[in-house]
Amino acid sequence: MEIREMLYEGKAKRLYSTDDPDALYLKYKNSLTAFNAKKKAEMEGKGELNNMISSWIFKYLRSKGIDSHFIERIDELSQLVKPVTIVPLEVVVRNVTAGSICRRLGVEEGMKLPRPLVEFYYKEDELDDPLVIRDHAVLFGWATDEELDRMTEMALTVDSVLTELFSSIDIDLVDFKLEFGKDKEGNILLADEISPDTCRFWQKGTRQSLDKDRFRKDLGDVLGAYREIWRRLSEKKEDN
Amino acid sequence: MEIREMLYEGKAKRLYSTDDPDALYLKYKNSLTAFNAKKKAEMEGKGELNNMISSWIFKYLRSKGIDSHFIERIDELSQLVKPVTIVPLEVVVRNVTAGSICRRLGVEEGMKLPRPLVEFYYKEDELDDPLVIRDHAVLFGWATDEELDRMTEMALTVDSVLTELFSSIDIDLVDFKLEFGKDKEGNILLADEISPDTCRFWQKGTRQSLDKDRFRKDLGDVLGAYREIWRRLSEKKEDN
Repeated sequence: MEIREMLYEGKAKRLYSTDDPDALYLKYKNSLTAFNAKKKAEMEGKGELNNMISSWIFKYLRSKGIDSHFIERIDELSQLVKPVTIVPLEVVVRNVTAGSICRRLGVEEGMKLPRPLVEFYYKEDELDDPLVIRDHAVLFGWATDEELDRMTEMALTVDSVLTELFSSIDIDLVDFKLEFGKDKEGNILLADEISPDTCRFWQKGTRQSLDKDRFRKDLGDVLGAYREIWRRLSEKKEDN
Repeated sequence: MEIREMLYEGKAKRLYSTDDPDALYLKYKNSLTAFNAKKKAEMEGKGELNNMISSWIFKYLRSKGIDSHFIERIDELSQLVKPVTIVPLEVVVRNVTAGSICRRLGVEEGMKLPRPLVEFYYKEDELDDPLVIRDHAVLFGWATDEELDRMTEMALTVDSVLTELFSSIDIDLVDFKLEFGKDKEGNILLADEISPDTCRFWQKGTRQSLDKDRFRKDLGDVLGAYREIWRRLSEKKEDN
């Protein structure tokens, strides 16, 4: 397979076309950013860990019937994915209160929610990814009502599958962010990545972060936490 | 009737108990504030205008079957209202894009929306009244799903009645903010005020502000605009 031009460079990945019109080449970077890239760092090994973790999770979700753009992992830093048009909404699922919701709404951190909360954010760095209501997305043409229903349904299924998965490796899944894309046929597929960059993982029964919050809050040993997530997942080989 | 203790002082009004347990005394102030009270002024005559305008509108809405806390206007600055427990949500209805939605979502000002947009904001000055989704209100106990449905339904009815009313006096109703309260029986009633402090009024077919935006944007002749709204409404006496 031949890698052609770079189509897009994000904060943590670069996307390239290939000689196969149905496959793009997605290469993970070692960059770590937080607070809409106001805080940045380079960490050798981080791209590889997120590529491994995200590939593992997308394969696991596929085995549970949840479609994503993921085709296969190629090597340490890269994977093949299907071309999709990204829906300009970030979908956040919360099981426990933490992070921005506590700051914005003045609620206490660490409250277990009686049911998962699904939020949509308009994906626009210049506006700091503002929270939106469904009607904003519909009226301004970012997604249809049917697409919002489908994304909500898929996000809740991912939450249920991943909560159980992580619980089995002694981790509480606090919250996570998903992105979705549409393929040529208009099907909604999971896209982007699922990794310690995009999830809050707490050591079970504690508030010990095993995710990007270690970087946001300067807790140290960021890569150690990512490595620990990968170690626990990869020891579950019988499942994947 | 005897006026007793002050129960609450807001940015634009003071609320007092009376010797009648079913009536509170609401007195308008001449204060004008914007941007969560970061900008302030005193304007002689403003309290009286808002008291007259809001009383007129609540009476008009009552004649159209929409209940509010309003009982009657007492004098230039005050009115009697029913005691209610305020729901801690501001309900904003938008017909045309303007103000915060343009800044937050990067949309152009002055776009006519294909249908009215109803938004909820958590009423908490310290947090700058953040936008919320319905599930935030339900999960954090600010309102039930049924109450949110009822407020949405009432807000859309108010929008439809007021859009027609203001159109008849050559004004485009761009957007407005409502507050709601619950009476002893748990009924949801319109509360607070409806005035040029809480609405965006544009001279029909133009973007000429006849509301608090004249103060927010230093356009001058704030009180003249409020007076003009009152003049046009009061000339419709046959209706009210």
